[in-house]
Parts: sequence; structure tokens; C-alpha cells
Amino acid sequence: MRYQLFLIVLLLAGCNKNSPTTDVSTNIQPKKKIVFEGLNCPWSIAFLNENEALVTEKNGALVKVNLQTKTKITIKGFPKDLTDSIGAIHIGDNSGIFEILLHPSFEKNKKLFFSYAAKKKGVGKTTKFVQAQLQNDSLTNQKTILVAEPYTYVNYHYGGGMTIGPDNKLYLTVGERLFWEHDEPVLPIAQDVTDPRGKIHRFNLDGTIPNDNPNLGKEAIPSIYAMGIRNTQGIAVQPETGTIWFTEHGTIQGDEINILKKGGNYGWPNVTSGKLRSDDYSPPKLEHVSFTVPAWFWQHTVAPTGLCFYTGKDFPHWKNNLLVPGLSRGSLWRFHIVGDTLKSAEELFLDDRVRSRKVAQSPEGKLYLLTDEENGKIIQILPK
Amino acid sequence: MRYQLFLIVLLLAGCNKNSPTTDVSTNIQPKKKIVFEGLNCPWSIAFLNENEALVTEKNGALVKVNLQTKTKITIKGFPKDLTDSIGAIHIGDNSGIFEILLHPSFEKNKKLFFSYAAKKKGVGKTTKFVQAQLQNDSLTNQKTILVAEPYTYVNYHYGGGMTIGPDNKLYLTVGERLFWEHDEPVLPIAQDVTDPRGKIHRFNLDGTIPNDNPNLGKEAIPSIYAMGIRNTQGIAVQPETGTIWFTEHGTIQGDEINILKKGGNYGWPNVTSGKLRSDDYSPPKLEHVSFTVPAWFWQHTVAPTGLCFYTGKDFPHWKNNLLVPGLSRGSLWRFHIVGDTLKSAEELFLDDRVRSRKVAQSPEGKLYLLTDEENGKIIQILPK
Repeated sequence: MRYQLFLIVLLLAGCNKNSPTTDVSTNIQPKKKIVFEGLNCPWSIAFLNENEALVTEKNGALVKVNLQTKTKITIKGFPKDLTDSIGAIHIGDNSGIFEILLHPSFEKNKKLFFSYAAKKKGVGKTTKFVQAQLQNDSLTNQKTILVAEPYTYVNYHYGGGMTIGPDNKLYLTVGERLFWEHDEPVLPIAQDVTDPRGKIHRFNLDGTIPNDNPNLGKEAIPSIYAMGIRNTQGIAVQPETGTIWFTEHGTIQGDEINILKKGGNYGWPNVTSGKLRSDDYSPPKLEHVSFTVPAWFWQHTVAPTGLCFYTGKDFPHWKNNLLVPGLSRGSLWRFHIVGDTLKSAEELFLDDRVRSRKVAQSPEGKLYLLTDEENGKIIQILPK
Repeated sequence: MRYQLFLIVLLLAGCNKNSPTTDVSTNIQPKKKIVFEGLNCPWSIAFLNENEALVTEKNGALVKVNLQTKTKITIKGFPKDLTDSIGAIHIGDNSGIFEILLHPSFEKNKKLFFSYAAKKKGVGKTTKFVQAQLQNDSLTNQKTILVAEPYTYVNYHYGGGMTIGPDNKLYLTVGERLFWEHDEPVLPIAQDVTDPRGKIHRFNLDGTIPNDNPNLGKEAIPSIYAMGIRNTQGIAVQPETGTIWFTEHGTIQGDEINILKKGGNYGWPNVTSGKLRSDDYSPPKLEHVSFTVPAWFWQHTVAPTGLCFYTGKDFPHWKNNLLVPGLSRGSLWRFHIVGDTLKSAEELFLDDRVRSRKVAQSPEGKLYLLTDEENGKIIQILPK
């Protein structure tokens, strides 16, 4: 009787019960399944096939994992100038190994790209990007693509993100490498075209400079493609359009998602969607400079990292959606995007947060999340 | 050639293209369709059938609309002590007509409930809840359920939300009716069980007091079911569980979604997930009081209003999701909830915001949005 009343009530209250129970409604909620553990803060993953992948451990090594046999081997020959944050006295030290990315012709030439924090005696550390070949689980024929000099003793904001565009060029992100804005030189680092930091760079796959990079002046570093960026770790290509999107870490709020534009200036530290950390700092007036506005910014701190556009089969209604994990709140965000327009933003796993560094897909489109933990995990996200 | 390269790149970059184009992925994105215009800040809607509905205009009248013929008539006999915010000198004056709700046995007894801002000469205005019968498009046999005295000259936070629970009881929301916390009496209004404001009340459908209301002491107003609430306009029943959920307006941030609990104290103004508006106000220490934590709070201002649990057919993957519109940012939020646990939160229509007062369903489950505009609209939300 109560239940009958309840039905009537719902009907008249404009919230009725006559809805179908379909596969869609019951099956498409995502759930997590841990498929690999014991990685020391995994940062990036590059799939060799459906079960095997190269994984960078921020505080470990470049390893090869098998998601079926649960085995892990260390890739030999990683550069000796690596510096990580093991035993770091600074909380949140960003030093370590960052991106791992396969060459588009990896099957033939076994080439890959990786980035890491390199140290140099007496001068400090900075972000380094290297191309190498993978032979018998060793890195050979190593060739430096970029060393983001100067070396400094700052432990933060290396950037380190990489992707390959639809133009078959290599795009690299280098963070500004500061923590406090009051440490900025007169011309802020990210606004200085003679400084590689706080920029996104563009290279040919052989490490040479493309002849169609933006002209930012005689003094400019020729690999600079975009500037005014505080710290970007995530950069990915939108399948439908070929547009490149990247995340940016703000200070106090100001985490952003941006669309990469040739010669674009994203404003840091002169404009930000958040607040500057140094109350006593005010950026200089810059003449004849226009800034690119973000496609999205959060009003709270998320620390967005390795993003990915979803093209898998498990969640058809997520097709071509942008997925963005976050470090600070351990959230996973899904954006439905049409062209350059964000239509909706969903925060997933509200009741199951985990500090997340990267979301990526296998060649067949299985979706995986890397967790930034000492016992770091590879978590598959699949339908209930 | 570029495109082939692009495919290879995406495949190796872990974002492949081999995803199916299914009805799901292409059809379930929501779009808006205006089905009715010319309503003066519509606040609430109660469907008489699939095409006809009663609609309250905050700054107008109780009207009957036909969504097919696009006609609108005014229901006669609305109480003369109505006060609205037409010509109000206070921006954001909340006075006017609020909820319209049909009796569970409306088909037989033609009874309904409505709420509005009532004025009384020389003393001010307050929230009033009335039961009446609808006969020949006139309100007859009017009977007052609650007058939330005292009358004051404050223009804000009337509450006015209503729903009928699975227990076949009438639940009413009354706001605290203050704007500044420094206007609070020694015992804050929402914490005072002898004051009907800042509360949710529970009545039998005939206006009498249920014998199983919480015992809040001899002095307590017997209709009080929950307290410590700043301002609630939206209250709805969760289909699967019968649990009642309600929105709460915070001050500076602090907008919340709460689960209604018998005798629950939601903390205002002693605890809030936002900030108090009066810097100079500090609430009194309350002994032996425990507060109920919100199910959700936003870190930015949304001004959530008339919520609804979705049970329609158009979006099967939204089944039993909670939909919450917002006034301040004009957003529509969708929460996937299992039991009392929020699993995900999606903000919809990022590129098409409209100040929204209420989301509701027709008897057959069509989804509609009421916009808070002088030319207020009824917008159907349907799949692309």
C-alpha cells in the first residue's frame, strides 16, 4: 500500500517510475580494476602491444611491464644524469622520469622518446628530452633533443609532457621551473623567448627544427611553438580535429585546459585564471602582447596531468571525450567537446579518489589510469 | 597521407580511432528545445497531463499552460496577500509565488498545495503554504497549512519548496529569511526550534501534525522535521530508496545538497561548507548539538534550486540520477548516485547557460527546465 501510494506520489510529483532498465543505463557506469601494482610513482605509459607496455616510474626506472603475467623488467641504459626525488627534503619534489613516447614508426625503427630531470654537478637540474632506440630491452643510440637550460636547484615544474601531432612533429612541454613568482627575473621566464622554460617546443622527429615553426624574433629559441605556460605535464591530440590540447598547473586555483595555437602566449605570470602565490609580486607591463584564453579552468585546485582523448569501445557515449586525471584531489574528469567547444564536464569516481598522473589507452582502446603512489598502480577503467 | 600518419600517430600514442559509432555515442548528448515562452520568472510546474501543467510565475500568477497549443490562462482566486518583487528596489528580491504541487489523489479530490510570499500590513512578509482545490480553473476551499511567522521586511530566503514523501506526508522548506548573519538573534533563527524559519516541516496531507515527527522538546514547533537550514528551494524523493534530498543555498560558496534525516540539524549558521557573509559575526557555542554533513557541496557559487530525480526514457544512462539546476551560473548538474553515495557529478550545457529555477518531468518522463527570466521559458531537454 505504501508502495502504491509512493508510485502515485512520484507520478504526480513529476518524477515517475516508468523508465526502462536497459543495458545502457546499467552497464556504462565505470568501475576500476587494478591490473598492475608495485610501480614507484608511475608517470607515463607507452603500449608495445595489448599486454606489454613501457612505463616510466618517476622515482624509479624506465620499466617494461606485462599486464597479463604481472612481470616487470628494468630497461637498461637509462641516462646516468637522472635525478629523482627519492629522499627529497622538499615535499612535492617533481624530479624524476617523466614521459615515454613511441616514434610513429617504432615497429620498424624501434625509436622512442623520453623525458626526465637531469642533474649537472655544480649547477643543478633541468628537463631533458632524449630520443633512443629500444634494442634487447636496452636504450641505444641515445640522442638529446632538448636540454632546457639553465640548470637550477629548483625542484619543481619540469613539465616533461610529449605528444606527436597530426603533422608528425614532436611537441614537448617545459615548465617554468619556479615555485614563487617573486623569483621571476625582470622579464618573466615564461615570457622570455630566449629561455626554453615555460614553453611548448616543436621538433621534427629527427630532432631538427621544422621550417614552419612560429617566428618569435631573431633572439628566440627556434624550437619554441607556444609560451607563457607555468607547468604543463599533459598534452594530447584530439582525434576528430587533430587539435592539440594541454593541461596547465595553476598556483592557487588557475588549473587550466588549453588549446595549442602556433605562437600562442598563455599569459603566465601576467594573466592567470587563479591567484599568484607571491602577494608581493606584480608582473611587468608587456607591450604589444595578446594572450590566449584557456578553453577551461577550474575554480578549485585539481593539478591536472596526463590527459587523453577517449576512442575506446567500452564507453561508446564517451567517444572522443577528453579525459583528465588530477593529482591534488585524485579525481578523473571527462569533457564532452565538439570542435573547440566544451559541452559538459563530469567528475568521476567521487567516492574513490586516487592521486592520478596519467590516463591512457591501449592500442585496442582499453582505458588505463596510472596512480602517483609509492606502490603505484595501473588501473583499468571498464564498464560495470 | 597526413591522415594516414595521423592514424599511426594516434594508434601509437595510445589514442586510437577504432571506436564504433553507435546510437549511444551519437544520440545521448542532450539538447534544448524551447516549448513555451512568456512566463514571468517561472518557479515551479505541476503536470496535469502530458501537455497541460500548472506553472507558478514568481513575479506573475499561478497559470495553466498547454505545451502543445502554447496557450496560457490565469488560475483565479489566488490569495490577495501575495507580494512579489515587481518594482523591487532590492536586487534579487525573492518575494513572489513559489511551489505548486498536486495532492497524490488530485485526480479524485482536485486538491493541490502552493507556497508564496504573503504580506501583512504593518508587519512585513513571510512564507505561506496553502492547500486548495482546483475547480473550473479557480482555487477554492483554501486552507492554510503554515504561515512561517514572524512577518519581517526582509526580501530574501523564503524557501518555499515542497514535496510529498513515500510516507505520503507533505514536506515544506522555510528559509532563514536573513541576508546578513550579524542580524541573527542570540540563538540563531535556524537553530531555534520555537521559530519556523530555517527549517523543513512535515505535515499530514490534511495539514495536521504526524504523530511520528521528531521530538525536539516541549517548546518546539511540532511540524519541524529538520533544522539548521539557511535556504532550501529544491526538495525531491529518490525513486530507488524513497530518501528525500534537498538543495541548500550557501552564502559565499557553501551551496549544498543534503539528505533529509528526521530531526537532522544541518548546522547553519554554526557550520557551513562556505563562508559567512558577515565578517564580524561569530555564532554562539551550542551544547549537545551534532550536525549532519552535506552529501555534496560546491567550491563555487551555483545557487542550486528545484532538483529532480530522472526516471525518463530519453536518457537511459541517466536513470535515477539527480538533476540540479543553478541560478547563479545557469548550469544544470547531473549526479549519479547509488544509495546515499555520489559516484559522479556532471555539469551540462557549459556553452549554453541559462538562469534555471527548476527541472521537472512530465508524467511520461519528458524532462523540462524552467528558466528564471522575465521572458521565462519551459525548455525540453531531449537527445540530439
